[in-house]
Amino acid sequence: MADETTNKQPQVGIIMGSQSDLKVMDAAAEILETLGVPFELTIVSAHRTPHRMIEYAENARKRGLKVVIAGAGGAAHLPGMVASLTTLPVIGVPVKSSNSIDGWDSVLSILQMPGGIPVATVALNGALNAGILAAEIIGTTNAAVADKLEKYKVSLKDKVMRSVEELRRGDRDEE
Amino acid sequence: MADETTNKQPQVGIIMGSQSDLKVMDAAAEILETLGVPFELTIVSAHRTPHRMIEYAENARKRGLKVVIAGAGGAAHLPGMVASLTTLPVIGVPVKSSNSIDGWDSVLSILQMPGGIPVATVALNGALNAGILAAEIIGTTNAAVADKLEKYKVSLKDKVMRSVEELRRGDRDEE
Amino acid sequence: MADETTNKQPQVGIIMGSQSDLKVMDAAAEILETLGVPFELTIVSAHRTPHRMIEYAENARKRGLKVVIAGAGGAAHLPGMVASLTTLPVIGVPVKSSNSIDGWDSVLSILQMPGGIPVATVALNGALNAGILAAEIIGTTNAAVADKLEKYKVSLKDKVMRSVEELRRGDRDEE
Amino acid sequence: MADETTNKQPQVGIIMGSQSDLKVMDAAAEILETLGVPFELTIVSAHRTPHRMIEYAENARKRGLKVVIAGAGGAAHLPGMVASLTTLPVIGVPVKSSNSIDGWDSVLSILQMPGGIPVATVALNGALNAGILAAEIIGTTNAAVADKLEKYKVSLKDKVMRSVEELRRGDRDEE
Amino acid sequence: MADETTNKQPQVGIIMGSQSDLKVMDAAAEILETLGVPFELTIVSAHRTPHRMIEYAENARKRGLKVVIAGAGGAAHLPGMVASLTTLPVIGVPVKSSNSIDGWDSVLSILQMPGGIPVATVALNGALNAGILAAEIIGTTNAAVADKLEKYKVSLKDKVMRSVEELRRGDRDEE
Amino acid sequence: MADETTNKQPQVGIIMGSQSDLKVMDAAAEILETLGVPFELTIVSAHRTPHRMIEYAENARKRGLKVVIAGAGGAAHLPGMVASLTTLPVIGVPVKSSNSIDGWDSVLSILQMPGGIPVATVALNGALNAGILAAEIIGTTNAAVADKLEKYKVSLKDKVMRSVEELRRGDRDEE
Amino acid sequence: MADETTNKQPQVGIIMGSQSDLKVMDAAAEILETLGVPFELTIVSAHRTPHRMIEYAENARKRGLKVVIAGAGGAAHLPGMVASLTTLPVIGVPVKSSNSIDGWDSVLSILQMPGGIPVATVALNGALNAGILAAEIIGTTNAAVADKLEKYKVSLKDKVMRSVEELRRGDRDEE
Amino acid sequence: MADETTNKQPQVGIIMGSQSDLKVMDAAAEILETLGVPFELTIVSAHRTPHRMIEYAENARKRGLKVVIAGAGGAAHLPGMVASLTTLPVIGVPVKSSNSIDGWDSVLSILQMPGGIPVATVALNGALNAGILAAEIIGTTNAAVADKLEKYKVSLKDKVMRSVEELRRGDRDEE
Repeated sequence: MADETTNKQPQVGIIMGSQSDLKVMDAAAEILETLGVPFELTIVSAHRTPHRMIEYAENARKRGLKVVIAGAGGAAHLPGMVASLTTLPVIGVPVKSSNSIDGWDSVLSILQMPGGIPVATVALNGALNAGILAAEIIGTTNAAVADKLEKYKVSLKDKVMRSVEELRRGDRDEE
Repeated sequence: MADETTNKQPQVGIIMGSQSDLKVMDAAAEILETLGVPFELTIVSAHRTPHRMIEYAENARKRGLKVVIAGAGGAAHLPGMVASLTTLPVIGVPVKSSNSIDGWDSVLSILQMPGGIPVATVALNGALNAGILAAEIIGTTNAAVADKLEKYKVSLKDKVMRSVEELRRGDRDEE
Repeated sequence: MADETTNKQPQVGIIMGSQSDLKVMDAAAEILETLGVPFELTIVSAHRTPHRMIEYAENARKRGLKVVIAGAGGAAHLPGMVASLTTLPVIGVPVKSSNSIDGWDSVLSILQMPGGIPVATVALNGALNAGILAAEIIGTTNAAVADKLEKYKVSLKDKVMRSVEELRRGDRDEE
Repeated sequence: MADETTNKQPQVGIIMGSQSDLKVMDAAAEILETLGVPFELTIVSAHRTPHRMIEYAENARKRGLKVVIAGAGGAAHLPGMVASLTTLPVIGVPVKSSNSIDGWDSVLSILQMPGGIPVATVALNGALNAGILAAEIIGTTNAAVADKLEKYKVSLKDKVMRSVEELRRGDRDEE
Repeated sequence: MADETTNKQPQVGIIMGSQSDLKVMDAAAEILETLGVPFELTIVSAHRTPHRMIEYAENARKRGLKVVIAGAGGAAHLPGMVASLTTLPVIGVPVKSSNSIDGWDSVLSILQMPGGIPVATVALNGALNAGILAAEIIGTTNAAVADKLEKYKVSLKDKVMRSVEELRRGDRDEE
Repeated sequence: MADETTNKQPQVGIIMGSQSDLKVMDAAAEILETLGVPFELTIVSAHRTPHRMIEYAENARKRGLKVVIAGAGGAAHLPGMVASLTTLPVIGVPVKSSNSIDGWDSVLSILQMPGGIPVATVALNGALNAGILAAEIIGTTNAAVADKLEKYKVSLKDKVMRSVEELRRGDRDEE
Repeated sequence: MADETTNKQPQVGIIMGSQSDLKVMDAAAEILETLGVPFELTIVSAHRTPHRMIEYAENARKRGLKVVIAGAGGAAHLPGMVASLTTLPVIGVPVKSSNSIDGWDSVLSILQMPGGIPVATVALNGALNAGILAAEIIGTTNAAVADKLEKYKVSLKDKVMRSVEELRRGDRDEE
Repeated sequence: MADETTNKQPQVGIIMGSQSDLKVMDAAAEILETLGVPFELTIVSAHRTPHRMIEYAENARKRGLKVVIAGAGGAAHLPGMVASLTTLPVIGVPVKSSNSIDGWDSVLSILQMPGGIPVATVALNGALNAGILAAEIIGTTNAAVADKLEKYKVSLKDKVMRSVEELRRGDRDEE
């Protein structure tokens, strides 16, 4: 993917606190591409670029975004702060960063938002699921995306059934 | 609220594992009412009524629901299993039930879903935020709901500013 | 082991959420082989193949199984969901998968089942003990298996006594 | 229940580390009575009566027991030590005692048994499930018990369906 | 204390996410009064009044403040966000709020700040210590405050010595 | 107990960080009295009376003490610091104080001492066991104390056997 | 850095419990050098050199230090004990040492100080932030340091903006 | 060390649950050798050789032992069970074994003993400290050992002071 924005009007904004989160967050971009949802991807740091974050969050809806995916590690304030500045659904991805205490810090500082300001939190390093969840939100009113999601679900099942087959044929020893 | 379903076609389905979750989950129903989002509310147990759960999840989209909110405590499988059976966005509410280990069990068994099957998890007992998040999802394409969300956000700010005023006037001692 | 089913009518069904769990779950198969308990082994995903899971669980007893061993990682719903669909004893093996939060997620989402639906949980990655426990259940009415279990217990003791001897002879330095 | 032993040859032995565990462990006795499984119930402390524990565990099988349910709190050694002294299946119930660290100590010291010596662990304070699990083990070869388990499962479902009905009729406000 | 600001130019700004934090945070105000450090106290919510927070943080230094004490519960973003917007030292007080997971969420989302943006974190509900720490910072260049801190330290010791005396005289039984 | 010191030369020094620890630590004093071990009891705060602590620790051996029992809560430094200043065995009692994070802070700050400076840590609030452990240390060379410890162990067993009897006679219903 | 003390009167004292902490704690020294704050750095062990620690802490203010940064791992008593012996602000750095339980021990034994004796705790291994916090304290009355802190904050933002640019130009694939 | 027993009457018995614990537990043997305390070392498994454990514990005092050091991992029952069978002081070493949940299981199942049966617990993998603690217990009545302990304490201090010197001379860069 040579550019972080697809050609069409992006519907999902993927942001992350630092460049080092990219290797985790790329999974969100890839699945959105697979599911045919236009997106953009950039770096927005709550702590190092607070004004950029405010501008990003406050303009997200008028710029045509429908969902924001925000990934961050440690004391992860990006998802919650973006959620405080927009009424778009915000999906938070806790990233297990290097000095994290086993990921608990990112999980809890994204999940435990106060009443009034929700963040849709996914599993630790769960950027793939963040992308699927964003597509599901788009898919509530976009039949084409909903259809691709159904196909994706079938593909998950097919993959399991293939491994069932391999196991039955005794391929297990070869792996 | 004398009935669990509003008159209009429900857009959000609120389900929970047991009647004892109702005192937590009611907050989702109330905020959806406030935000003008029609919903339904019922009890669906993953472990005690698995077939009811499957039927509920598989029919949710064709029945016109756009979002499912599922609350459960302990080893909370309802949100994840519903998510495995629909491509609608599923919001999970970890409920701190009586024999829970401080809520960690419900949080982790809802949040830590495997790749492919997201659950949008909110804070422990965070049913209010689940309702708001559902409205935000509806609001991505429904301007009236989006507008009510903006007003709700302003009301949150106003409430803080009133407490700032009270504090300034020295009302603090009276509380 | 070239095939996942032994020739005789399997008494224990070993299932797991994904092929990646196989390197942990194989220990259950191996000890059942050692203890002379016929078993079958396959992949059943609660989240990716929910209908396969339902069919597996609901037919387990009539197919002649006496115990189901189910291993899964992260938000591990397989053991609990199978338990909700059968009255056979279900043994749950929490698997420490790659994005797990130190295994706590699998442990708690298998162990903390609600009243009415037990899962016999063993230690994190404890597939060996799951196999022995299944044999103990068979052994409550099968004297041959009970006898092999007694011999296995003696072999555990003998192994300790050999290391005691080695230590006494000063072999410790050679290891 | 005026006596701790039913008249028939007990098939399940319920033991616990101290009299204070009785209010938790009684649930195992009650469900076994409901499911028609004869049992006995007594106090056996790993730390205060180690020889009584050894005798109990080593004679369990020859006395005709098929399953032992052992409940204990804190550094809970009773289930694991009994498991080391018998080849019967041992079900461990972590009890949340007064000076417990939120129950983690009992859970981990029962669950995390070393390879070779399984304990079938249920949820914190999960004595009800321990009783059901014991009945499931008996039910692998006892059709009458298996049948009662099926009926119990139906009763769980019926109870959920009644609360669904009450909710539909608007009874929720009366609770 | 009838007003939240002392008459003199405040040197410490005490802020908190919600009025409900006041019962914890008051201890910071009281000790600053005792130690003769002028302060102000108000409510600033990161999530409900983000612009008020930005304005507060960015003007803190030019308004003459030397230290900011920020208390918040749950996913506590106030201390870290203020720290991102000022170069004044920011002291964070994790507040154990009602739906907190035992306080771990507030502790970790304040403590685990990324490199570059420190928050001086004190114990859970440790507002008293936040006040003392603020005074110690003032006291690095203000001899009067440093002197009061020395006297406070002596008073802590004296209180211990009085309880030693009471114990020696056998007063223990009377308590 | 009208005085904190028994008449004979104390062999065990019981110290604690604050008067509020007394209700927990009294259990150590009581069991030492029962076991005939002379002791003293006083308050020594690592943080509020560091010089008193140093003096206490450095003089403990020459004053004839053989064991020090130190109880403290939160960031509990008393046991470890005393251990750094004496070569007597130091027993640490983690006290679950009011603002403790479930007792984990006291447990870990007493238990996890660096290599070279051991603290013999007992359970959270385990002052009774601290007293018994001190007596066991005295009892390694004092036959009278060793004998009382044997009798105490028998009394523990007898108490269990009495509850076994009560249960057998059906007294359980009366409790 | 050939020497641990800069030429000018040190304003910040960096101490740590053992030489092995140096690889973590060096980050504090480096940032203070960058920010133009003179410092000294040495090893002071609470448990192995308690008298050296007392002397260091009690003389810190009169020797002209304004802030002490203390790093330690495991049951980390150095920061809290130094704080008990001085009225200077003490910054504690929890170090994740080799036998630490995931760093929780150092975090909790530094953070959870009792009322009256604050330690300004930073993130696990957060020596960089400890250095910045020390500079912020100096900067409350030293305009030159405050100015360098502003420039440092700008440099953090600039670094983010450069990575935004790189991402926009598609450099992401080259990394 | 060619033999596990020193020539003189052993005063300390070092036991461990399995041969794999030897690499951790050796540190106890080495320091006892250094401190001139005769010891023996062997393998005793609570779960695999329960009768050997009972015999070991019940004969320890009459065989002349004064202290038992017991190391074990996971659900670690050896220290507590030995403590239940002797009135000698028992020191427990939690070993972080391969399938341990970060060591929490061994720590809690050794530390959280019920009232009446103390185990002197040291840090995770803290066998060195277990050895020193055993020597401190011997040293309460053995002046020669007490003297060696004093010298050991001085050597710890000397080692710190040498690293202080190296740091002062700028040797830090060479390491």
